[in-house]
Amino acid sequence: FPSKLPNVGTTIFSVMSALANQHQAVNLGQGFPDFGCDPKLVDAVTAAMQAGHNQYPPMPGMPQLREAVASKMQALHGCRYDANSEITITAGATQAILTVILATVHAGDEVIVLDPCYDSYAPNIELAGGTCVRVPLTPGTFRPDFAKIAAAITPQTRLLIVNTPHNPSATIWSADEMRQLEALLAPTNVLLISDEVYEHMVFDGAQHESAARFAGLAARAFIVSSFGKTYHVTGWKVGTVAAPAALMAEFRKVHQFNVFTVNTPMQVGLATYMADPAPYLELSAFYQRKRDLFALGLRDTRFKLLPTTGTYFQCVGISAVTELNESDFCQWLVKEVGVAAIPLSAFYGNGFDQKVIRFCFAKKDETLQAALERLRKL
Amino acid sequence: FPSKLPNVGTTIFSVMSALANQHQAVNLGQGFPDFGCDPKLVDAVTAAMQAGHNQYPPMPGMPQLREAVASKMQALHGCRYDANSEITITAGATQAILTVILATVHAGDEVIVLDPCYDSYAPNIELAGGTCVRVPLTPGTFRPDFAKIAAAITPQTRLLIVNTPHNPSATIWSADEMRQLEALLAPTNVLLISDEVYEHMVFDGAQHESAARFAGLAARAFIVSSFGKTYHVTGWKVGTVAAPAALMAEFRKVHQFNVFTVNTPMQVGLATYMADPAPYLELSAFYQRKRDLFALGLRDTRFKLLPTTGTYFQCVGISAVTELNESDFCQWLVKEVGVAAIPLSAFYGNGFDQKVIRFCFAKKDETLQAALERLRKL
Ligand SMILES: CSCCC(=O)C(=O)O
Ligand SMILES: CSCCC(=O)C(=O)O
Repeated sequence: FPSKLPNVGTTIFSVMSALANQHQAVNLGQGFPDFGCDPKLVDAVTAAMQAGHNQYPPMPGMPQLREAVASKMQALHGCRYDANSEITITAGATQAILTVILATVHAGDEVIVLDPCYDSYAPNIELAGGTCVRVPLTPGTFRPDFAKIAAAITPQTRLLIVNTPHNPSATIWSADEMRQLEALLAPTNVLLISDEVYEHMVFDGAQHESAARFAGLAARAFIVSSFGKTYHVTGWKVGTVAAPAALMAEFRKVHQFNVFTVNTPMQVGLATYMADPAPYLELSAFYQRKRDLFALGLRDTRFKLLPTTGTYFQCVGISAVTELNESDFCQWLVKEVGVAAIPLSAFYGNGFDQKVIRFCFAKKDETLQAALERLRKL
Repeated sequence: FPSKLPNVGTTIFSVMSALANQHQAVNLGQGFPDFGCDPKLVDAVTAAMQAGHNQYPPMPGMPQLREAVASKMQALHGCRYDANSEITITAGATQAILTVILATVHAGDEVIVLDPCYDSYAPNIELAGGTCVRVPLTPGTFRPDFAKIAAAITPQTRLLIVNTPHNPSATIWSADEMRQLEALLAPTNVLLISDEVYEHMVFDGAQHESAARFAGLAARAFIVSSFGKTYHVTGWKVGTVAAPAALMAEFRKVHQFNVFTVNTPMQVGLATYMADPAPYLELSAFYQRKRDLFALGLRDTRFKLLPTTGTYFQCVGISAVTELNESDFCQWLVKEVGVAAIPLSAFYGNGFDQKVIRFCFAKKDETLQAALERLRKL
């Protein structure tokens, strides 16, 4: 039968992790920590299972977890979301994003994404029968180009997807940029997905500017986040989406017929654990130290360090290191040097190659040291 | 913005569970046990978390769990599925089914479902841009009507969805019926979803006839099951899909951009627990006793018991009890009598009302007794 996604292969993150295992490379490719989560979080989930929280939760998620998310968003961003009607727990951020797209994008609708971007967006749009319209971020700086975004908006535009802190570039949007986006969208009916899974990793005193902080954005936004990145449990696959009630009602219509609902004991354990804000408040400092450790190790190499203001990724220019393109260099690096990285071209619709690759520094110090030892030989 | 599912509300199972809680009713509506799972299973998941299995698993699922599923299918059905390329772990059966539909159904394709059926199928088909073609099972007996199925097949038919043991009717397909389906589909390219989530609940010595046992079906089938029903953990949201490698490759293209992957510690714990076949081999006897207990309690009431050969549901005719239609009777029953049930009309596209409602007997004996006490007063 004809493929629904004829141009899609296996996601680059799986491909690179498999190669890393095969070649016993240090895996700085796929974004996940190689250290454990807080044992208290494991204990909270265990307690939930032992207390019998093993059957279907309410379809939108456990009330105590939705309350905890709404309270956190109010404390951090001064916004009010009703836990009952405006927050839903998802099986990770990726599921949240597909579900928003299926719930909003009709056949023939256009969705604007800003390249480089996460590789699920475009196939998600295709599955909904929509058209993916790719607008590049400014080459070199990765800043949003509002003139280009404005020019891409048509009467068919249903949705715009933004992501801050930004994977893969490790930049974050400023308050001024968020306000410019707000002004640009004000005269339109365009909906927004704000992918904020790295919300708790911003460095050098910068502040994460959630779409929740800008009334004109919040009114049209599905704000997506994930517990996996924040609590070092990427394998638990629990995420969240916040949106005004009318948008959320449409989201839930699809959500209930996609996953129906999300793992109960994980939700109960996460709700217990969220009572203490310290783990997410301290996360930026935790990762800033790792960023600095990794960057320091690369300082006197021919890799060119790009600034990392958010996320747990470090992008580096490879022009002075190799003649190869990004993808070939990453293949060579994992096989011959024993370090896995992700080529930035994997995040572009047109495979744009700017000779930049992405390392993930969410790793034990010793893992980062082992990678640096290999990379410093180049 | 215009709804993608304008005719869809909240799924009946959530509505009824909410009503049951509100009215402190005995909840025999939504299908889930009110007793705990085996503590050994909880311990296995706890051990997995403590051993650090908290990051992304491979996209198709943990290898040991895929191996365990393939081995079980071979032992029970004599079929061979390659764990590497033909089994994928999903976030429950509902997610598996949407993902198959998104991966196979193109705009304008037709999908045949057999009414009554699970309420996610039709919206799933709508979201893929397909047309849901509803063929009724034979009224009264719920047997498949092969002449009607054959008549519904057109050149646009992409997919047929069957479900055995069958929710809500509690019937199972016989080997002869499976062979008739095999013969009927032989000259076509129609793909099959075989929803077998109640595979381990068949009674009175009957045998579950998996699509995996019939080569002509297996070659075109996505066989869907779930650990939630089998191991009393409906809230864990872990399911499986088995299909020939070429079909599975298309499934995974979509799966990776829906949930990407599924909760790691649950997968590791389930794999450990599956080493012992006793829990699923003994499940039918366990539920047969509950079926008999519940049926006995209703014997001298005016409810008319329909045969239950599989699943954990008991359907009863209500004509001798009430003038109300199914839906109004269920509303009255939960509010005034304090017992929640599901109207069979909720499983029909046209709301067909045959004065039959569904009770779930996956409950503690004392819960069933409490419900019976209330129902016997009618
Ligand atoms: C879903 S695997 C990818 C993890 C991640 O977010 C990344 O590496 O970009
Ligand atoms: C997803 S909630 C419904 C559970 C179930 O399978 C049923 O009650 O039919």
